Amino acid sequence: MRTAIIGLGLIGGSIALDLRKRGFSDELIGVDKNIKNSEKALELGLVDRIAGLDEAIKISDLIILSVPVSIIVELLPYILSNMKKGAILTDVGSTKEAICKSVEDHPNRQCYVSSHPMAGTENSGPEAALVDLFNNKTCIICDIEKSNKKALNVIKKMYACLGMRIVYMEPAEHDLHTAYVSHLSHITSFALANAVLEKEQDSSAIFNLAGGGFESTARLGKSSPEMWAPIFNHNKENISEALDLYIKHISMFKKCIDENDSEGYIKLMRNANSIRRVLNNIPKIKKLITL
Amino acid sequence: MRTAIIGLGLIGGSIALDLRKRGFSDELIGVDKNIKNSEKALELGLVDRIAGLDEAIKISDLIILSVPVSIIVELLPYILSNMKKGAILTDVGSTKEAICKSVEDHPNRQCYVSSHPMAGTENSGPEAALVDLFNNKTCIICDIEKSNKKALNVIKKMYACLGMRIVYMEPAEHDLHTAYVSHLSHITSFALANAVLEKEQDSSAIFNLAGGGFESTARLGKSSPEMWAPIFNHNKENISEALDLYIKHISMFKKCIDENDSEGYIKLMRNANSIRRVLNNIPKIKKLITL
Repeated sequence: MRTAIIGLGLIGGSIALDLRKRGFSDELIGVDKNIKNSEKALELGLVDRIAGLDEAIKISDLIILSVPVSIIVELLPYILSNMKKGAILTDVGSTKEAICKSVEDHPNRQCYVSSHPMAGTENSGPEAALVDLFNNKTCIICDIEKSNKKALNVIKKMYACLGMRIVYMEPAEHDLHTAYVSHLSHITSFALANAVLEKEQDSSAIFNLAGGGFESTARLGKSSPEMWAPIFNHNKENISEALDLYIKHISMFKKCIDENDSEGYIKLMRNANSIRRVLNNIPKIKKLITL
Repeated sequence: MRTAIIGLGLIGGSIALDLRKRGFSDELIGVDKNIKNSEKALELGLVDRIAGLDEAIKISDLIILSVPVSIIVELLPYILSNMKKGAILTDVGSTKEAICKSVEDHPNRQCYVSSHPMAGTENSGPEAALVDLFNNKTCIICDIEKSNKKALNVIKKMYACLGMRIVYMEPAEHDLHTAYVSHLSHITSFALANAVLEKEQDSSAIFNLAGGGFESTARLGKSSPEMWAPIFNHNKENISEALDLYIKHISMFKKCIDENDSEGYIKLMRNANSIRRVLNNIPKIKKLITL
């Protein structure tokens, strides 16, 4: 299956690595408007060759769109209109409502599968691509009734090949849950990094003290603004609601500390501790599918 | 050197593992008022034998106090008054001002070194003990001028043996920096876990979506209230100030999102990104000292 990956960053590059390793694609074509990324992806062997967008979408059997969500909504209709007959298209965007809406009335809609493989790191660009990044993680597929059987089967097979479990959601439901479980985490990290950077101007204290949990909590603060700004833009109502709830919770904590209410903050910590039961029981997939 | 470790949890147990592995102590005596912890520590081979507090402090050359900070301030004067002549005492508490104050006028003060090895995980108890937990991390030593040379040398040697770099600070300075770089991280994680648990009552969405950064950001939300409540109590002024600054930063982020000010939140993210330069340049210690 000749596969085009449009956007050769962390996600696109990591998909390429695994599809090659597991024999899913005969030929991997890379597309990236940033020439340095294209050259790097070729040099790293992520793809077999680089092509322009128009060439790639005309000759590929499978097209994976892995660019910021603001570009996905622009390119999706164009690709659906211009890809070859029988080809299949998916995107990996972190929001789904605006993206699904952008092609809901497109005559070729059924050849597109709307998906979101939930994996990543705080790094970006082709150098950030990792083997097995998706292994044991969840891929959300939305609006399955709008895709044809063949398209759906190919995309499900592809994600199974990356080691992912597949979960189905409506786009609105996806955007609501990811606001809380993913987007909010990133904003808490950005804000933590900013607060500590404001206080610790010479940064030597951060060097010295980062062992105490700061590194993992602030890690996502390194994430790419180019990727995240369009996500905040697409999902602003849900994220704003999530931030309200979060600020309520952190303010409750502060109130207990200010009022010497140790029973109060112990209760809040005990409640938070039940996240252990949830995080420790995330299901694991035992066997990877190799084609 | 006969060493007593009082408090056989994550920190005490991990110190025991490394001191044994690197030949620092001839005999490791464990003390824990929780009999299950004592038995478990013995079963796991963390210590050679279990003793009562009074026996341990009478016969040991080196005493390491690794209990919650509220217990440290109670036990420190008692141990200093009752330990054998020439013995050395240290504590590993996460606050330093109240702890140092608790023994500032003690006639035996010079045999005590106030320290804080900055390492840990979200787990607790002897089963959580890890080899190499402290390797390449920082240990803060406070009020060095109040300890005698011999005590200081033994404690510095011990932390070097755990692979730690040593940094000196005044107790007040220590408590201020840790409020921002360590204590704040824990509170943001507790609040994140609580906000998400409130919204996602059936927890299946967390199972499915936790790949998106939530797991690392909420990890510290699993931390022990028994350990953390006394820290918040000791360091409440600094933590309250740190929370104010943090809430200011997260509210700025929310305001930009609510007002569609994408330039604003891009600027906040770019500022946060400079944490990469700091986190990626934390100095590493190349060689472990083995005695």
